[in-house]
Amino acid sequence: MEWTEISVLTNDESQDAVINILMEFGSLGVELDSRDDGVLSINSYFPEDFDIKSKVPAIQERVDQLKSFGLNPGMGKVVTKDLNDDKWNTEWEKYYHAKRITKFLTISPVWEDYKKESDDELVIKLDPKKAFGTGVHPTTVLCLQAIENIIREGQSILDIGTGSGVLSIGAKLLGASDIEAYDYDDDAVTSAKQNVALNGFADDIKVGKNSLLDGITKKVDIIFANMLPEAVLPLIPQAVNNLNPGGQIIISGIIKEKLDITNQTLKDNDFVIDQVSMLGDWCGITAHLRRDDE
Amino acid sequence: MEWTEISVLTNDESQDAVINILMEFGSLGVELDSRDDGVLSINSYFPEDFDIKSKVPAIQERVDQLKSFGLNPGMGKVVTKDLNDDKWNTEWEKYYHAKRITKFLTISPVWEDYKKESDDELVIKLDPKKAFGTGVHPTTVLCLQAIENIIREGQSILDIGTGSGVLSIGAKLLGASDIEAYDYDDDAVTSAKQNVALNGFADDIKVGKNSLLDGITKKVDIIFANMLPEAVLPLIPQAVNNLNPGGQIIISGIIKEKLDITNQTLKDNDFVIDQVSMLGDWCGITAHLRRDDE
Repeated sequence: MEWTEISVLTNDESQDAVINILMEFGSLGVELDSRDDGVLSINSYFPEDFDIKSKVPAIQERVDQLKSFGLNPGMGKVVTKDLNDDKWNTEWEKYYHAKRITKFLTISPVWEDYKKESDDELVIKLDPKKAFGTGVHPTTVLCLQAIENIIREGQSILDIGTGSGVLSIGAKLLGASDIEAYDYDDDAVTSAKQNVALNGFADDIKVGKNSLLDGITKKVDIIFANMLPEAVLPLIPQAVNNLNPGGQIIISGIIKEKLDITNQTLKDNDFVIDQVSMLGDWCGITAHLRRDDE
Repeated sequence: MEWTEISVLTNDESQDAVINILMEFGSLGVELDSRDDGVLSINSYFPEDFDIKSKVPAIQERVDQLKSFGLNPGMGKVVTKDLNDDKWNTEWEKYYHAKRITKFLTISPVWEDYKKESDDELVIKLDPKKAFGTGVHPTTVLCLQAIENIIREGQSILDIGTGSGVLSIGAKLLGASDIEAYDYDDDAVTSAKQNVALNGFADDIKVGKNSLLDGITKKVDIIFANMLPEAVLPLIPQAVNNLNPGGQIIISGIIKEKLDITNQTLKDNDFVIDQVSMLGDWCGITAHLRRDDE
């Protein structure tokens, strides 16, 4: 598969704004490269099918608009580069290493021979080369923390927008017993299946292609939804029908500005907000379906 | 020791406001009692030395003021009751049971013969009868979650305002190796020492009496500060001198309205905010001392 590297050449002042723009256009993570000439290159990678090249003019327009918000974008130029799989792998391996997410959970890329720092560490192996999400993006970290907080032995899970499958594999490590993971993107489904196989203990995770919760009738204890607000908001009314009484939902992928509307949508659909956690500009929400006694 | 039970008789509408008032007057947790006659009794317990009775008129005045904020406090009456130790214990045991805080951490009162639900559960035993904090208050939960996220093997800790000692005992369970816990309150110091002894594995935690970080010169990897903002804000400039390079601080006990000023005080003292987490009306903050490369 071919990949497209898209880079925005800018500066520290506009860093957050540019990352937000790239995220809005579907990026699930960026690489920051401070060049010797003082230019900050913010790079993101998109699979061929995503057709990001057709969106470059729109991205350039958004970057140009930063000036009207009083931000200086510096060079403010959007450039693209085609990468074949080999090149892509090299790029990844350069900046993606094992990362301890919590005291107990570590994500290690498959090419790294990671040695545990303590006996009780649980290691998720990921091959991110065709994955959507490396496992170390703040939204994934927020989800994994929330899972570690709320999950109990034997709980059942629906993981919607599973991407690389990282959350389902983590949930399995933490004791969940009936896990189904879905994504509408064929490459994500392939990637999640590969990562599930890579972590031998996770073989009973069911991975499939699906659009949100359409047509899924089973009820579970917890739903994971690590997706952009555009996908999360329509998912929330669906989720009500797929949760056991008092069941929980973990939502991530929420940029700060969208926190209020996401919380309101949860409340409008009879959820009670339990916890909100913010890491950089990203928010994770844990909520539960209102119980009869509440 | 004698204890005073202070109850505010009110209703659901004013519940949050009344809890905030009690917290401002030093309560570290409340019991909610929905009476058959429709009245909501919000109860909190204070040790004799605290002399809460002298503050009852001020508390009553604050409850009366709720009407001017458009809130109906219902009966809106503040009542007190003396409890001896026996009665106090009975009250506690009635509503305080083991609670799983995360997948891995559980707090169990000493009178409960708690059976682990999974092999990898770590159990903190607490005798809360003379403790400040039961371990299940949201601010404690936020701290324990943050500790589980950031702590790594062998890290050193200063636990300021330790209360029952619960955070130090949790940190020990999670692999910290050099822990000193301080409180300015004699009863808290006694309680923390008792709880450390109760959890045999935690014998090497050093518990002492101290006002914030006054006179403490050692540098550690993480400082815990689970206290009200009035105590946290003056602690922050002190903490800078007691952290190793890049060292972290976990702050809790922050009511939502005080989040901005706490964050600003951290930034003014060269801390970088890593994560903010909100549970109900309470906030926990994790920050680190700015590194040379930041």
